[in-house]
Amino acid sequence: MKKIKLKVPATVANMVCGFDILGMAVHDPYDEMEFRLLETPEIIIKHTDLFGLPEEPSGNVAGVVLLKMQESLNLKNGFEVIIHKHIKPGSGLGSSAASAAGAAFGANALLGNPLSKEEVVHFAMFGEELASGVRHADNIAPCIYGGITLVKSTSPMDIIPLNSPDLFVTAVHPQVEVKTSDARQILKKNITLKSAVEQWGNIAGLVAGIEKNDFSLIGRSLNDVIIEPIRSILIPKFDEIKTKSLQLGALGGGISGSGPSIFMLSEKKETAEKIAQMMQSAYDEIDIESFVYVSKINPAGIQIVEEA
Amino acid sequence: MKKIKLKVPATVANMVCGFDILGMAVHDPYDEMEFRLLETPEIIIKHTDLFGLPEEPSGNVAGVVLLKMQESLNLKNGFEVIIHKHIKPGSGLGSSAASAAGAAFGANALLGNPLSKEEVVHFAMFGEELASGVRHADNIAPCIYGGITLVKSTSPMDIIPLNSPDLFVTAVHPQVEVKTSDARQILKKNITLKSAVEQWGNIAGLVAGIEKNDFSLIGRSLNDVIIEPIRSILIPKFDEIKTKSLQLGALGGGISGSGPSIFMLSEKKETAEKIAQMMQSAYDEIDIESFVYVSKINPAGIQIVEEA
Repeated sequence: MKKIKLKVPATVANMVCGFDILGMAVHDPYDEMEFRLLETPEIIIKHTDLFGLPEEPSGNVAGVVLLKMQESLNLKNGFEVIIHKHIKPGSGLGSSAASAAGAAFGANALLGNPLSKEEVVHFAMFGEELASGVRHADNIAPCIYGGITLVKSTSPMDIIPLNSPDLFVTAVHPQVEVKTSDARQILKKNITLKSAVEQWGNIAGLVAGIEKNDFSLIGRSLNDVIIEPIRSILIPKFDEIKTKSLQLGALGGGISGSGPSIFMLSEKKETAEKIAQMMQSAYDEIDIESFVYVSKINPAGIQIVEEA
Repeated sequence: MKKIKLKVPATVANMVCGFDILGMAVHDPYDEMEFRLLETPEIIIKHTDLFGLPEEPSGNVAGVVLLKMQESLNLKNGFEVIIHKHIKPGSGLGSSAASAAGAAFGANALLGNPLSKEEVVHFAMFGEELASGVRHADNIAPCIYGGITLVKSTSPMDIIPLNSPDLFVTAVHPQVEVKTSDARQILKKNITLKSAVEQWGNIAGLVAGIEKNDFSLIGRSLNDVIIEPIRSILIPKFDEIKTKSLQLGALGGGISGSGPSIFMLSEKKETAEKIAQMMQSAYDEIDIESFVYVSKINPAGIQIVEEA
């Protein structure tokens, strides 16, 4: 195999009460990444999109992952990667994770899959480190494993793929900037034990609901008493959109990643689409451009769509 | 049905990282409770044990539950209950919960089961209120439902029975007094977000492990970074017993309820029994009398063993 093309999905990290531990893959939006195995140890990164991301390998999220793999695995080969990015940087939908996870997954595939999934996650995390300063796997894990993943720990690596319920995801990305660093800094360092206990009841309920395919339990558990009340202030119309989504029949939802995107889970496609319309109208009203996406939870994660 | 006899199991609340939300039923120890339906609205409580518990209904854990049921359900009947208590009061193994849950379950059975399990829990909670001042369901829920239960909320009542893994439980009850009020007061009101995130990763892992029957994951998740480091100071030899249990092959474990009992989970009966011996020896060494129990997780909870 000398050439492959990947479809790399967007991901929702910090799933409501599952702050820092639960994430899921969706179908839409997604990036496309074309890989070519080179005989020389060069790393070439090209972007066809207009986001102006750096193409110098050491400054590119995919590039640093490939450089790290080259070094650690003593590779004589190089890689050319053409990235067609559709997941907007800064959306909170795992744009940098897609590049990082795609790079590690694609290189591994071209080399004949010498690495386990956990090792692919390990290398992809260097891309997240470049993008955000933190070597986290919140988005990378669901991107690579698909479905909903629990990142119990990254050191040692302990990723648990959960069941992938047959639910629709509506995501809206309003065109406002929420810096990940601001979203981190705004959080309180200390919380009350009482609120923590409430939160872990919800997490336990959410994981049980996911594993049992109990949609009502998932809905009753999608409740974040610690992070959302603080971070949602940074996202215009968050409360209105959440309230209206629940009225329209959403099981629940919240901030995607550290925002500004908001996601909602629904049992029916019709509900998910009504929510999408409502979200767009809500931002139209205040002249904020927004992009909405409706798709199912993506049980597969990154997929090879062409190979030669 | 005019007479029944119940076997009412001990329970382990606050399952390690599942503080205030996760509990499980065991087979041993257990109480026996004999019920007789009376034509007159009298409540008669008798104890055959020597624990000196009050028999006046309004001051007895089972008695207040029956009084509350009588009042709420406008019963013309009364009940005679003979309690053979084997679960020692103050052990942290759900002794008061057994009396409370047994009373509500037994009365409901004699009346032809007009109440749902959630309603039985509701009435039993009045017994816990008398015993500890707090109307909690941490022990009552697993006692009534069996297996491992998640008490997501008691208001509104939201109890989720989880899977019941085929594991052995070793419990040791050292004869030292840990007052529930002291065990509550010693806890910090505030915790760091960082430790809370670690804790909810463990809870998510524990619930996933329970649902998937993944014993390794259960073991990796039985880790409490918030409550145990504080409360374990009240229990002599806690650290030594935990370390040695893990060395002997336990998956993990911790404080049962608010102590002083300690429990450990193991895959094999042989391991569970070795741990029991080690626990008893550890307390023998320092001249503290102790009682040890080895049984499986009890998937059924309270059982009717005789009826007439």
